[in-house]
Amino acid sequence: MDKSAVSKATLGRLPEYLRMLKNISPETVPYISATTIAKKLDLGEVQVRKDFASVSGAGKPKLGYSTFELTERIEECLGSNKPTPAVLVGAGKLGRALLHFNEFEKYGVKIVAAFDLNEETINFGKKTEILPMARFEQFCKEGQIRLGIITVGEGSAQEVCDQMVKGGINAIWNFAPCKLNVPSGVLLQNENLALSLAHLNNQLCN
Amino acid sequence: MDKSAVSKATLGRLPEYLRMLKNISPETVPYISATTIAKKLDLGEVQVRKDFASVSGAGKPKLGYSTFELTERIEECLGSNKPTPAVLVGAGKLGRALLHFNEFEKYGVKIVAAFDLNEETINFGKKTEILPMARFEQFCKEGQIRLGIITVGEGSAQEVCDQMVKGGINAIWNFAPCKLNVPSGVLLQNENLALSLAHLNNQLCN
Repeated sequence: MDKSAVSKATLGRLPEYLRMLKNISPETVPYISATTIAKKLDLGEVQVRKDFASVSGAGKPKLGYSTFELTERIEECLGSNKPTPAVLVGAGKLGRALLHFNEFEKYGVKIVAAFDLNEETINFGKKTEILPMARFEQFCKEGQIRLGIITVGEGSAQEVCDQMVKGGINAIWNFAPCKLNVPSGVLLQNENLALSLAHLNNQLCN
Repeated sequence: MDKSAVSKATLGRLPEYLRMLKNISPETVPYISATTIAKKLDLGEVQVRKDFASVSGAGKPKLGYSTFELTERIEECLGSNKPTPAVLVGAGKLGRALLHFNEFEKYGVKIVAAFDLNEETINFGKKTEILPMARFEQFCKEGQIRLGIITVGEGSAQEVCDQMVKGGINAIWNFAPCKLNVPSGVLLQNENLALSLAHLNNQLCN
């Protein structure tokens, strides 16, 4: 199954399906229907069928989906069995908030290290260390890290972005409120939180 | 000009136009062309014209846009002269990160207070106070607050949401990773940061 076929909307519902399926034992319930799942999760049946079609294929007539197979396909698609390691640069307030976020792993990403200009190595909770930038490139290369998160300010974002590219990262999630230049072949996704709020405000004002 | 006509993409470029226009004196440059602006900001001329059409109308032939009027229309559309007051509930790591975010005001929203279950009143920087939830409803009603941000955990998000509705809030920006029920007429925008990252990861894995 080609993962590129999965839309962001479908992707967003997968953790919910997975949570439900994890509570069902494939031994006692070997097959489950889209109707049952739709009812349990208060979703449309057609939507459930479409979501499953894009991750797992069609169910069996009169039987539904194999509980075991469906669970496995969703986990595969989410990458939750083998999370993609990511690094974060900028251990300020936003960076630390993201490090504490428990949701990423459900969606197949694990932030394995955070970096900051700060020269000290700080043990951040039990999960992640904050390391000095001097160790960044080597860390990324050794760990074959391909996913980077930028939570530094506008002023140093491009520099950090360039270091990420040098370290072999080819997908960047940028929170700095500025445009970044990346070479072709590197994915860049800008997260403009202020714009999301502005959009809501704009709807409110009409 | 009906603000509902402004798309999220246009809205996202408005602060950039505004920053540029603010550096120009309307006395020395009374009119400015889309071509000039497009060049300065490295944008397409057609896009600039379309953006301006939706906030300010067409420019004058051979002259361009009145610098003064264009600046005023953009400010009006962004609400940056008269920001919408917003309240935030949940002064944990993410909540505090958002309180420190300087970008919201550029887009016409000002977080005027943050609330938490914590009974103490904390002076948070010089900008915002963190107040106990016991004061929430009254604060919202007195200040006629219509915009609320939820940064509490999954477990208390629905309760907070209900309190917001009771306090008269009719647009909610929710960061808690769960579904919320709101009465009709209340706008709800869910912000799923994990999903944004998952989407990037999904593209990377293909």
